[in-house]
Amino acid sequence: VKLLTLARDLQRRKARERQGLFVAEGVRAVEELLRSDLHVRGALVSAALMVAARGKALRETIETREIELLELPERDFATAAGTDSPQGVLAIAEVPRRTFESLGLPAVARLLALDGVQDPGNAGALLRTAAALGVQATFALPGTVDLWNPKVVRSAMGALFHRPALSCTWDELGRFLRENDVGAWGADSEGEPVDAIEARDVPARLALIVGNEGSGLSEEARALADRRVRISLSSDIESLNVAVAAGILLHHFRPGAKRP
Amino acid sequence: VKLLTLARDLQRRKARERQGLFVAEGVRAVEELLRSDLHVRGALVSAALMVAARGKALRETIETREIELLELPERDFATAAGTDSPQGVLAIAEVPRRTFESLGLPAVARLLALDGVQDPGNAGALLRTAAALGVQATFALPGTVDLWNPKVVRSAMGALFHRPALSCTWDELGRFLRENDVGAWGADSEGEPVDAIEARDVPARLALIVGNEGSGLSEEARALADRRVRISLSSDIESLNVAVAAGILLHHFRPGAKRP
Repeated sequence: VKLLTLARDLQRRKARERQGLFVAEGVRAVEELLRSDLHVRGALVSAALMVAARGKALRETIETREIELLELPERDFATAAGTDSPQGVLAIAEVPRRTFESLGLPAVARLLALDGVQDPGNAGALLRTAAALGVQATFALPGTVDLWNPKVVRSAMGALFHRPALSCTWDELGRFLRENDVGAWGADSEGEPVDAIEARDVPARLALIVGNEGSGLSEEARALADRRVRISLSSDIESLNVAVAAGILLHHFRPGAKRP
Repeated sequence: VKLLTLARDLQRRKARERQGLFVAEGVRAVEELLRSDLHVRGALVSAALMVAARGKALRETIETREIELLELPERDFATAAGTDSPQGVLAIAEVPRRTFESLGLPAVARLLALDGVQDPGNAGALLRTAAALGVQATFALPGTVDLWNPKVVRSAMGALFHRPALSCTWDELGRFLRENDVGAWGADSEGEPVDAIEARDVPARLALIVGNEGSGLSEEARALADRRVRISLSSDIESLNVAVAAGILLHHFRPGAKRP
């Protein structure tokens, strides 16, 4: 029952930070967790997991790996689950210790910085998008939701387990970018249109900064950004979702993109 | 109290189809609705709307426009609201009668077809993305969530009110595309990489088809598509969110894109 108390506790950011642990919930998230090199401390399951072959297979994997397993009645499981209709599996794992020093950037690199992204679903979608498009690491700047929040973990679809992501201050990020010769560009509805930018002007190492859903880039982001860029939008539509905007920009400025 | 019964009833697709009405909930959605040319039948408000200046202004607009207004205690309002923490405003409006005949495509046009997109949040994000990127109309093919579902309406952020969107069969869509000389390309993880496609091969009128979140394009979509295209992804990440993928493809194949 210690595992159950722990899983409940880890819904709170303070507890995650103190323990260095987080919760991954749902079949897909736990599958991805087991495919990663993260250390899994334990798992909770309920009968709901056993209705589909995929769930049964997942349980077998947990047992084969000799991960501590606690089987719970649906009602108890629900007290630790963050979703309305739990799939009957969650795992507790160690937050990987990522540091700037451990990043080791290739000559051509892409990074993503989240500047006050508050919505967990958006943060997760950003992590997933970044990983899919070859971004080496994602940084959470002040005002951004905790990346190990269970909703972020769930919507990141495994991206958090396979790619470095870390929280940092603007000073730390600025120093890292300077020391590693990384250009910083901010996504900004008042920036230069992407079509005005020549392929040869895109730095080999580029960090894209995306801002808060409502208020856009912070002062600190504007100070750090060498350039601000925008996607041209229809005049009657206010904005794109932040993950969609990041996806478009990361794809547009991808290494080796065929553009004049 | 008739308005309250109606609002509750319109949570169901059948009622929306029978009545030709839908519900827009929340400050942003109702603001966008009032900015559009859709006919608004009535509005429900609760005290929660009056806590912020923006809410007060919205209520004034509703009154100035002489829209039937019903003020409700929080508890009653909640029975018609689809969100957990309602902002205290919802409006009932007529589903616009859109037909293929009314579309009138320009010489250069972009369309989006949703092939079995089931998640309301994804459908709304797709509508918003499409509108922002200049898509003239969006089509919901069989298996796609009802576009007038309150969650779709909310996450579309007004896109549904400003741009034509309609449900249709594959036969109807196929006929329309042929008669109007519109090319159809499907987003498919096994398609041609976008970098392999020359700008001169992109049709002036192009419909992008995006498939179900899990199973991808349907048989019918594959039969209709002239070409299937893919975004190159990192090998360890399974997929992009469907709205992010659509955003990237619509932007990549936008009219006048600077590409060789």
